[in-house]
Amino acid sequence: MKKTSTYPVSARGPADHEVRDQIVAAATEHFSRYGYEKTTVSDLAKAIGFSKAYIYKFFESKQAIGEMICANCLRQIEAEVSAAMAETDLAPEKLRRMFKAATEASLKLFFQDRKLYEIAASAATENWQAVVAYEGHIQKLLQDVLQEGRQSGDFERKTPLDETAKAIYLVMRPYLNPLLLQYSLDYTEEAPMHLSNLVLRSLSP
Amino acid sequence: MKKTSTYPVSARGPADHEVRDQIVAAATEHFSRYGYEKTTVSDLAKAIGFSKAYIYKFFESKQAIGEMICANCLRQIEAEVSAAMAETDLAPEKLRRMFKAATEASLKLFFQDRKLYEIAASAATENWQAVVAYEGHIQKLLQDVLQEGRQSGDFERKTPLDETAKAIYLVMRPYLNPLLLQYSLDYTEEAPMHLSNLVLRSLSP
Repeated sequence: MKKTSTYPVSARGPADHEVRDQIVAAATEHFSRYGYEKTTVSDLAKAIGFSKAYIYKFFESKQAIGEMICANCLRQIEAEVSAAMAETDLAPEKLRRMFKAATEASLKLFFQDRKLYEIAASAATENWQAVVAYEGHIQKLLQDVLQEGRQSGDFERKTPLDETAKAIYLVMRPYLNPLLLQYSLDYTEEAPMHLSNLVLRSLSP
Repeated sequence: MKKTSTYPVSARGPADHEVRDQIVAAATEHFSRYGYEKTTVSDLAKAIGFSKAYIYKFFESKQAIGEMICANCLRQIEAEVSAAMAETDLAPEKLRRMFKAATEASLKLFFQDRKLYEIAASAATENWQAVVAYEGHIQKLLQDVLQEGRQSGDFERKTPLDETAKAIYLVMRPYLNPLLLQYSLDYTEEAPMHLSNLVLRSLSP
């Protein structure tokens, strides 16, 4: 358990959250280069130049660091998806951009730039809190777009909204979830377009 | 290389194809109990009661046996899917049954009854011939149903047939491909229904 200091920050060096951010940044770098599974907290401490005990003052386990990294990654994907959707006011186009941006951001983070796949795979397998929140957020975004499209007359209104949102989420899932995405890499170029077309046809009033 | 005997079958014991079938049946049993990856041809020979050399007379490698098992499994799935589709004349209902039967048959074969998942996973990862043929067969079934539904007036005719078939195949893929299916087990109850509904809405004229 970490105690909250009563001293002012300036008198005791960097604030806790700054040290935590520093550890997370260095760990992200390290994991994306050497992998998450095989790295121990000792390896990490050595690489960062901190003592193992010092790291344990801020995180109770490797997974706690992994969860923070994972949460940051998923927030980044959410930000990219939201930015892509904000470029247009039309609901059908928002849906297209959502699918495309989510696929591209997931690919980039898990397989290309940072190779944080191993953390994402653990997170998805063990249903970490950040993953549950992320999936909820994506489903909420979907519901919002559907509602917008229903109001504007672009989408049909007969099907229950939650059922439609769930089905579209299932269509997108192989391109969002890193465990499925690893086996869908041959399809990431074409699938978002083909599947958006299919989904939009299913939504026509 | 296996030589073809010029003696009549009765004079030399069982025909080659009978021995091959016998090896495949025993190997299917063995792999489904002990797994494919870690079993060697020696283990298999011991379990069946044949010499390793005798097995090698009929199959050039463990993978050759695995491919035969895999081909049998996929033919069984195809048969179950075809039987389910033959129960109805209505194209929309055929599509529903196809999705449901393919999911159930894959689940049963790879995860429940025989646990032939490891063979299926190797087959899917390495794109064995039997898998390529199976995927082609499923896509052909899809195209046929689409054509039927277009002729009967149940389905729209504007979208190019091959594009529609491809998109629907992508929707079904997480429930057909064993590598994706292992991460979709939480969804196999509901997904075929929700996704069939979505696909059928996308096909409405």
